[in-house]
Amino acid sequence: MPEQPKFVGLDVGGTTMKSAVVTSDGRPLSEPVVMDTEPQRGQEAGLETMCETIRRAVSAAKLTLADIAAIGVGTPGLMDIKAGLILDPPNLKPWKNVPVRNHIATVFGKPTAFQNDANAAAYGEFWVGAAQDARSMVLFTLGTGVGSGIIIDDAIIEGEHSHGGELGHMRIAMPDTGRQCGCGARGCLEAYASATNVVRRAREDMACYRGETKLRAYYTANDDDFTAKEVFDLAAGGDELAMKVVDDTAYYLALGACAAIASVDPEMIVFGGGMVASGEWFRAKIEAYVKRYGLPFPTKSVKIAFAKLGSDAGFIGAAGCARMLYRRG
Amino acid sequence: MPEQPKFVGLDVGGTTMKSAVVTSDGRPLSEPVVMDTEPQRGQEAGLETMCETIRRAVSAAKLTLADIAAIGVGTPGLMDIKAGLILDPPNLKPWKNVPVRNHIATVFGKPTAFQNDANAAAYGEFWVGAAQDARSMVLFTLGTGVGSGIIIDDAIIEGEHSHGGELGHMRIAMPDTGRQCGCGARGCLEAYASATNVVRRAREDMACYRGETKLRAYYTANDDDFTAKEVFDLAAGGDELAMKVVDDTAYYLALGACAAIASVDPEMIVFGGGMVASGEWFRAKIEAYVKRYGLPFPTKSVKIAFAKLGSDAGFIGAAGCARMLYRRG
Repeated sequence: MPEQPKFVGLDVGGTTMKSAVVTSDGRPLSEPVVMDTEPQRGQEAGLETMCETIRRAVSAAKLTLADIAAIGVGTPGLMDIKAGLILDPPNLKPWKNVPVRNHIATVFGKPTAFQNDANAAAYGEFWVGAAQDARSMVLFTLGTGVGSGIIIDDAIIEGEHSHGGELGHMRIAMPDTGRQCGCGARGCLEAYASATNVVRRAREDMACYRGETKLRAYYTANDDDFTAKEVFDLAAGGDELAMKVVDDTAYYLALGACAAIASVDPEMIVFGGGMVASGEWFRAKIEAYVKRYGLPFPTKSVKIAFAKLGSDAGFIGAAGCARMLYRRG
Repeated sequence: MPEQPKFVGLDVGGTTMKSAVVTSDGRPLSEPVVMDTEPQRGQEAGLETMCETIRRAVSAAKLTLADIAAIGVGTPGLMDIKAGLILDPPNLKPWKNVPVRNHIATVFGKPTAFQNDANAAAYGEFWVGAAQDARSMVLFTLGTGVGSGIIIDDAIIEGEHSHGGELGHMRIAMPDTGRQCGCGARGCLEAYASATNVVRRAREDMACYRGETKLRAYYTANDDDFTAKEVFDLAAGGDELAMKVVDDTAYYLALGACAAIASVDPEMIVFGGGMVASGEWFRAKIEAYVKRYGLPFPTKSVKIAFAKLGSDAGFIGAAGCARMLYRRG
């Protein structure tokens, strides 16, 4: 049997880049190589760091470039996926119009796939993670924001303007009455259900809560101690107000899931990010609200699951995109 | 040059069925044949009427069955698209578990495509209608309900449970505070923007309006005279309250369009159904709200248009589905 092709996946974030070589059945050949992105050093430096991270990933796998069939890169938006360009990404300032795909393809002389980072993570979970047995899935990643990606029949819904699967900015409330989102609009799912907004809602709920709650200790302590994790931990421990905040979070996420069902009706909806460490009770809460508020027929069968690849989903998915490109010839 | 293949498209509705032979470039060869559906006569009778409508369509085109390459049928849900079954359609009671695709394929001995009626209509507009130059589109059809369909790269987003593109039941308001929808849930787009709900909102707005409005004459007259068309006509004539109702309708439809953008980011969003007869001023209103409330980057370029095929979109799109099936071999 000829040797299976191998792919480099690179996940570019605002703070770090992660990369590893991944086999054609989705197995990383080493721990990922991590380097600082340092966007403030400019985009030329950024492109060089991408290349260096890729080189080190190949070394970490004890391979040479000749062993690599193709490369895949996921980056945050704004971007033009078809053109292979980062346009004007809020998390990578001051980069602008960076020709990522062409640069990497030229430096390494390899077919190079370029993708939105959330789409890449979704593809990772679809390929070898939580949704590996599903034909279609929607991923929501809960962090500072709410990222998302839609995969149908092994294809990423990229969108005509590279904004497919921006379900964090799908509204769950009307724009005149909804919560303010970081994007400037009101009513976006992200304004309710991101980790950042779990903390904000906890503060607001405390302000009009007269009962006892351990959340207050965090509120008066160092702000940095007060993250979504504390809210979830206190809820798991039975704190009534923390439980209310978590329950509301599940409700809002379920409304996002219901919108995904009415839109593309996937086989599976996957939630990733820090909050899913809280465990099965949180998943079950989301599922219960989906069953209550979703379109009855598809909701009966849709699977609600937590992501499996953690923060590796991005580079594994990027490698999966390289594999897709390679297989298409 | 060999003769181009020809396809029969059949659009099954709750009241009538429409069918015509359509060329491989999307041109109907006759006026559509129309027969009464009469669902109360049962599903055996219904299947026979489908076959008879198809036979008459072939005759109307002055062809014989030998000239037909494939057949396409669109029906209302609930359905199982992959299995070719109508399951339990509210508009075709008492039909249940009707094997439409197999029956028609067997009777005529032709490859037969089966599709949701709204998806078929969307495919018609994508193929040879308003979106014929687009790579991706979302259709909203405004009637008793709000139907929809999503087409990306010549493929219909059917959904894992045949509920892809049910954007009429995408919520634009929260389920506890939103308007009641016919589906039983609250907050669905349809509960705001269907023709039926335009009339309902007009009544409600009248009830708390103290100014002069010609809408009141309809309210006190025969209920049947009071349709969305009257509201739009009075708005076009400058009636202030009617203008408010139409403006709200544009706003709600725009929120649906914004959800479609955040979800699949199509090149084009098309609105069809009776209301679009009101003309360009209504389209411009919708577009203005989309620009105001949509994700800025994709919204800058998304095209907002009215449908072009009218009530022929269903059978033309069904024929288009037959053509897709035929081309795939």
